[in-house]
Amino acid sequence: MTRYHHGNLRRALLDAAVTAIEDGGVSALRLRDLARRAGVSHAAPAHHFGDRAGLLAAVATEGFLRFGDALTDAASPPGSTLLDLGVAYVRFAVEHPGYFQVMFRGGLRDEDHPELVAARARTWDILADAAAQVSDRLGTDPLATATAAWSAAHGLAVLADDGALPAGLGSDPATVARRVLSPLFGGPHPGRPPTPA
Amino acid sequence: MTRYHHGNLRRALLDAAVTAIEDGGVSALRLRDLARRAGVSHAAPAHHFGDRAGLLAAVATEGFLRFGDALTDAASPPGSTLLDLGVAYVRFAVEHPGYFQVMFRGGLRDEDHPELVAARARTWDILADAAAQVSDRLGTDPLATATAAWSAAHGLAVLADDGALPAGLGSDPATVARRVLSPLFGGPHPGRPPTPA
Repeated sequence: MTRYHHGNLRRALLDAAVTAIEDGGVSALRLRDLARRAGVSHAAPAHHFGDRAGLLAAVATEGFLRFGDALTDAASPPGSTLLDLGVAYVRFAVEHPGYFQVMFRGGLRDEDHPELVAARARTWDILADAAAQVSDRLGTDPLATATAAWSAAHGLAVLADDGALPAGLGSDPATVARRVLSPLFGGPHPGRPPTPA
Repeated sequence: MTRYHHGNLRRALLDAAVTAIEDGGVSALRLRDLARRAGVSHAAPAHHFGDRAGLLAAVATEGFLRFGDALTDAASPPGSTLLDLGVAYVRFAVEHPGYFQVMFRGGLRDEDHPELVAARARTWDILADAAAQVSDRLGTDPLATATAAWSAAHGLAVLADDGALPAGLGSDPATVARRVLSPLFGGPHPGRPPTPA
């Protein structure tokens, strides 16, 4: 059994949970297996997270915080576009499948986890801000445009994870994402028809 | 125990499988539970589908055939657009969650199920044909445009199923889908900026 400082033990349990979810999916995660994986007392997970839902909420919250950081990084460089955020969205999903699964398929009830709701709302706001620049330019419904951008990136991430994308798109996730999302909201004039020669 | 004509028994088993998946997810489906649900001999599922993967492939294949029919219906009326297909896509996912889950999250290996690959390719071709009209008009990459349209509809369907869409979009799936997907590929001139007044 490994001895940890309190904060390090929580960290070790979260990491073990993410690895377990990557291995077997959310539905297979059990608190008692987690203690064994982390090499700690079987009481440790309950002590830190209460129950299984508490653990999943902690994983999902941390996932949305990291996701928000990744989107912020993508939106920060001068001249960055909604396309850059879409690419970062897909990259995060591909690189963090354990977090991503719990964030969107954890089956958690919002009313029980206000910290999760806040972390998710932050990622939405980052995406909605970038989408607002597009809806302003195109004169489209801002809420619909932000949801559409989110849907396109999310759908691409999910289809890639399921191995359901057509052959011929390539295999590097960021390159595929940039190519696929470009027709929707790429470059300085997303969706605008080409100027006739 | 119920007595069935051979074809009706297969139908009853497929229906029982879809209902079981809607109730408990793909991962919880077991052949022996299925026989009990359908009220037939425990040997019947294995006789008709071989193993669990064979059953899931049959469900997924039937799902893609129905999905293809729904997309064809949406694409048939004169003047129908890619947006109409996107709305039909989301409606199918919402109305047939059991099929949809197995079609995209069944974990099946393509090489074992050529009939599934063919049924899926048909739905892709219907969507790609409609997307080609958009990529022709916008001068965008046809494969990327078709994949983007598919991703947007798929992502919207998945987010709706997870209860992850922002409040304020409304609750009727077809209405939400039309509103959200319009900025991406709606109407006669998808994505084109409004004409200045």
